[in-house]
Amino acid sequence: MSQTEKRAVDTIIGARWVVPVEPHGVVLENHAVVIHKGQILALVPQAEAAAAYVAAQNVALDEHVLMPGLVNAHTHNPMTLMRGIADDLPLMTWLTQHIWPAEAKAISPEFVRDGVELAIAEMVRGGTTCCNENYFFPDVQAATYRRHGFRAMVGLPIIEFPSAWAKTSDEYFDKALGVHDEYRDTALLGTAFAPHAPYTVSNASFERTRLLSDQLDMPVHVHVHETAQEVEDSRRDHGVRPLQRLQGLGIVNDHLIAVHMTQLTDAEIELCAEAGVSVVHCPESNLKLASGFCPAERLRRAGVNVAIGTDGCASNNDLDMFGEMRTAALLAKGVAADASAFDAASTLRAATLGSARALGWGDRIGSLEAGKAADLAAVRLDALETQPVFHVISQLVYACGRHQVSDVWIAGERKLSGGILVDMDSADLLARARSWRNRLAAFD
Amino acid sequence: MSQTEKRAVDTIIGARWVVPVEPHGVVLENHAVVIHKGQILALVPQAEAAAAYVAAQNVALDEHVLMPGLVNAHTHNPMTLMRGIADDLPLMTWLTQHIWPAEAKAISPEFVRDGVELAIAEMVRGGTTCCNENYFFPDVQAATYRRHGFRAMVGLPIIEFPSAWAKTSDEYFDKALGVHDEYRDTALLGTAFAPHAPYTVSNASFERTRLLSDQLDMPVHVHVHETAQEVEDSRRDHGVRPLQRLQGLGIVNDHLIAVHMTQLTDAEIELCAEAGVSVVHCPESNLKLASGFCPAERLRRAGVNVAIGTDGCASNNDLDMFGEMRTAALLAKGVAADASAFDAASTLRAATLGSARALGWGDRIGSLEAGKAADLAAVRLDALETQPVFHVISQLVYACGRHQVSDVWIAGERKLSGGILVDMDSADLLARARSWRNRLAAFD
Repeated sequence: MSQTEKRAVDTIIGARWVVPVEPHGVVLENHAVVIHKGQILALVPQAEAAAAYVAAQNVALDEHVLMPGLVNAHTHNPMTLMRGIADDLPLMTWLTQHIWPAEAKAISPEFVRDGVELAIAEMVRGGTTCCNENYFFPDVQAATYRRHGFRAMVGLPIIEFPSAWAKTSDEYFDKALGVHDEYRDTALLGTAFAPHAPYTVSNASFERTRLLSDQLDMPVHVHVHETAQEVEDSRRDHGVRPLQRLQGLGIVNDHLIAVHMTQLTDAEIELCAEAGVSVVHCPESNLKLASGFCPAERLRRAGVNVAIGTDGCASNNDLDMFGEMRTAALLAKGVAADASAFDAASTLRAATLGSARALGWGDRIGSLEAGKAADLAAVRLDALETQPVFHVISQLVYACGRHQVSDVWIAGERKLSGGILVDMDSADLLARARSWRNRLAAFD
Repeated sequence: MSQTEKRAVDTIIGARWVVPVEPHGVVLENHAVVIHKGQILALVPQAEAAAAYVAAQNVALDEHVLMPGLVNAHTHNPMTLMRGIADDLPLMTWLTQHIWPAEAKAISPEFVRDGVELAIAEMVRGGTTCCNENYFFPDVQAATYRRHGFRAMVGLPIIEFPSAWAKTSDEYFDKALGVHDEYRDTALLGTAFAPHAPYTVSNASFERTRLLSDQLDMPVHVHVHETAQEVEDSRRDHGVRPLQRLQGLGIVNDHLIAVHMTQLTDAEIELCAEAGVSVVHCPESNLKLASGFCPAERLRRAGVNVAIGTDGCASNNDLDMFGEMRTAALLAKGVAADASAFDAASTLRAATLGSARALGWGDRIGSLEAGKAADLAAVRLDALETQPVFHVISQLVYACGRHQVSDVWIAGERKLSGGILVDMDSADLLARARSWRNRLAAFD
């Protein structure tokens, strides 16, 4: 085939190994991802790509694994500025004496913007290309993600308490719908309702959320069954466990992104599987706050879609999805008392396609398939710490550090190149982080 | 004071923060460690160091934490060459169908040498300056650690099964004593008896170990109570739990380095505290093999010396003591159902001074105190992933990645300089790891 017969495309990325996630557990050698107009056009052997396409840009990754960008299914990214502000404390002391007082004084559009920018830099450097955000000032978040070309599902907070963002339930809903309208057609962005938790949101607000979610086809992102205390309190106050209450309010359906879920009966797991609920497992946050153990392997075996999230940096203390995968895979084995639980390929799948599906974006991202967005991460395996290489996916989950991520694309746009952030000023981010440190330390 | 009145020393390292570990929980700002002849001479404010000493070499670490080198209290470093050879398998399948067949064909002096060299590179790059080794061919290990100037306690294996190292119990003991004699006066090295586990070592061999350990004042490094199955089997075969059997054989004393200990009654914890036993907690290995949960916080509160180890790379799959600290701190909270369990400072202490004490070297390493060996690690905190910095020790345990380690000294000798290995050839290590990969893959 002559050069002129080849199809012109934007980018061809050839890699030593490609892990597409779908089909499950597959490792392709010396394949190439062909990208055009932000989408994956083909995933084929390198020779075939060279024969069929001519690219404006060719990238050769000879020591790398090319994989779908990781999808962080639960974050509070503005809180990145509160990384490590208060650790090793019981939950209520942590919340009432440290986090809430600091938030009460700090939360502002500038805080949210700077926190999200620091988070974007950290996520990109660690191979994460999409997040499911949950915090105040979703308008500022959305503008910040849009400005940096970072894919995000922005949660629209609903809570019965006043905050710097809104004062009344009506105002939360009004502002939520305003942000939804403003960003409904914005590339890379989506919006979800984010009623905080069963214990902070009224029946009326959940019912209103359910109506709007149905009308607008929007996900509903809720902290559910995070602790045993929450379940006990619900039984005392409502006579039923929180999930049962949510079911009665019509919230338990395939729009529901249920985060944490450390307390689950067999019947509740079955309910989640039947209703199409996605569960976001945040193992490091659950451990750090001693919240309990999510039965991740039981959920997976029951057919529930399991996603993985880091939670915010005040309870983790990072946005490291490689670390989170590793903790998820290890902890699931301990909790299930079964060394074959949450194997490496299933863990990687949860952190990519599972998280994508939780957001309702399973047809768009989460695997390297023709027609999906070109959200990719390349990981060097030639570090001494990941040698020798017997099994590539195992290496990604059990040995790899996020600093081995070298290159990242979102919708075909290069965001990280040879470990260097494209179009983000690290020195400026560092200076702003330090400035917030000094402002926040006054409340600590 | 004039220049001529200043005391001449080898090195002064000034750092933005110094965490000496002893006193507990302290963070010193703008201090300097003064080093002479491989030892710490003083830890003083930088201005005081400049006034009192003149150094052949001055090192300024303006964005760093300077801390004691981490001490990995349980490793099988030759197995670094088996990193990820078989994962996500039940323990017995893993052992009998993968690890043992590969070992049976691979174990040789060359395998041990190459594995230990790869491990030294990984440990140094991750801020670890000492390890407690446990594998066959301890003579080759000792020679390799000596050649690279790496501090190690070399375990002398005792097991009732023939191996490439020795065939009979008598031969194991003879060779053990030979290695002990050869290396008894070697700087940086020590030797310990390493009877494998209660279920693979006879009463006679434990009694002989105890006698020799007493005579020669050597630690005894044993896998104990790793799984519930081990405890059950011992009750069936010996009528008592393994620890009780060891107690009857005189092994439960302050020479004992008891590794894993996932199954412990209150009485056994009390026994360990009273007898001065050190417990090595290997949280990632215990999770990965679904062995059980070591009650690390209960041990700590009972006054037992708790150390931290990674175990070997076939069950972890790395030698990352930063990752292990983080997992230890997080898991202890989940297991104790207490978010204040295994706080950051206590975790760092376990991974340094706790591990040093387990090896009987608490007077020599594990903290930055005058008179101790100059085993140090410097960690950059100016990465975006560890910003902002509210609490330095928290940042080390909960946010820092091992790739942020920039500089390492062992006995005052620079081993890592600005992230680059001194006197180790990374390309050669990589080539040898790949060669072993091809040889071992044939058995997988």
